Amino acid sequence: MGDAVAGHFGELIGVEIVDLGPDEAKARIAVADRHKQPYGVVHGGVFASLAETLSSAATYAAVRDEGLVALGQSNNATFLRPIREGHVHAVARPRQRGRSTWVWDVELSDDEGEACALVRMTIAVRPRR
Amino acid sequence: MGDAVAGHFGELIGVEIVDLGPDEAKARIAVADRHKQPYGVVHGGVFASLAETLSSAATYAAVRDEGLVALGQSNNATFLRPIREGHVHAVARPRQRGRSTWVWDVELSDDEGEACALVRMTIAVRPRR
Amino acid sequence: MGDAVAGHFGELIGVEIVDLGPDEAKARIAVADRHKQPYGVVHGGVFASLAETLSSAATYAAVRDEGLVALGQSNNATFLRPIREGHVHAVARPRQRGRSTWVWDVELSDDEGEACALVRMTIAVRPRR
Amino acid sequence: MGDAVAGHFGELIGVEIVDLGPDEAKARIAVADRHKQPYGVVHGGVFASLAETLSSAATYAAVRDEGLVALGQSNNATFLRPIREGHVHAVARPRQRGRSTWVWDVELSDDEGEACALVRMTIAVRPRR
Repeated sequence: MGDAVAGHFGELIGVEIVDLGPDEAKARIAVADRHKQPYGVVHGGVFASLAETLSSAATYAAVRDEGLVALGQSNNATFLRPIREGHVHAVARPRQRGRSTWVWDVELSDDEGEACALVRMTIAVRPRR
Repeated sequence: MGDAVAGHFGELIGVEIVDLGPDEAKARIAVADRHKQPYGVVHGGVFASLAETLSSAATYAAVRDEGLVALGQSNNATFLRPIREGHVHAVARPRQRGRSTWVWDVELSDDEGEACALVRMTIAVRPRR
Repeated sequence: MGDAVAGHFGELIGVEIVDLGPDEAKARIAVADRHKQPYGVVHGGVFASLAETLSSAATYAAVRDEGLVALGQSNNATFLRPIREGHVHAVARPRQRGRSTWVWDVELSDDEGEACALVRMTIAVRPRR
Repeated sequence: MGDAVAGHFGELIGVEIVDLGPDEAKARIAVADRHKQPYGVVHGGVFASLAETLSSAATYAAVRDEGLVALGQSNNATFLRPIREGHVHAVARPRQRGRSTWVWDVELSDDEGEACALVRMTIAVRPRR
């Protein structure tokens, strides 16, 4: 199901959606050279992009039956530890599910389960036009 | 010069570095379908990734002769307006150039010059190991 | 006009509103011991609180005639340089004035005009209940 | 112990430090009129200030024996739900304890235990000068 949900950019960076539950959503990326910045570690933009793809898809999955769409409003990423190989694993948990705003905490970790980046994602929920 | 400076991920998303001056740095991406999320607009991760690629490269250009490297510490993106076509233009201006931390304000705009996203990027400067 | 606009907490921390124009708003605090953290410099919370008081008041001044209220949604502060004495000067400029969201960039500076903190403030605009 | 640790500004806003453990730190504020903005709810700056006071004090408690000090670098607050009365309770958990940077997630909640604000706090750790 990943490709249609993740969209073209999600495909480009290799997002694999694992689960889109309303209380916890999961996705991952298998790290390859194309994800790296010049020092050989995963680019910070990959963490931010994976977190946004996952939390946007999970929000949309929860609100689309009400005729609503989900639009990223802010993406605040903090980088803790580099990843050189393996996977980037993302787990997103909703902290607010409001009528007009959803807030997600997304934790990105490596194959050893160490937290490598934290993303707080705010998503606007609006009527489909 | 863009490819070597932007790294593999910069290449993947098509970052074209325009200028890496220490007081103002510029880059852009020519928008294509691969940059879009499911609603047909540029994915928020593209804005965050472009801003981080540009400000990291500009920081590194300024500190590499001192034996230092530049590592993203946080990337705070706020989305203002969608882009569907044309280019994403990025202009980065340093707000702090400290011994251990650089802070950049990056404005992302469309071909009409309208601001579409704002990124505040914090970069750690550390001795090369 | 400062007190009524700034509210009780604005009074407590000594916010003096200088100007609430829709394109640029200004306020300041005269630094005293009560604003300091244990190392003798102005507490980061003072910068965040001043920025939020100012941008909330300026948003409300612009939307109240339409029956709307302004509610802080996020406050992202980056600290650049300490202040020990004199004033904290705040200048806020709107980057988005949407139907449901306003975004302000607030620069906090010292009496020498040096930038000491940057705050990106997002304010939700909602109908008065 | 609260007053000396919280500093003058911590005293001004009534921060009561409950616990400063390295794995979890707690503090609270008893809500009074002086904490409120014009709509009668606790000012967002109170949440940001409480989170910064707590996480700075907890970092300093952990590093002072090594001759280090703790300085706020960024304070990213997201507001979820207003508080009108009772207490603001803060629980801070460290997400990174590096040589030069500590990152804390601080959750602010009301007397019913509902999350009202989330703060991601980055603190620079530096040698005492």
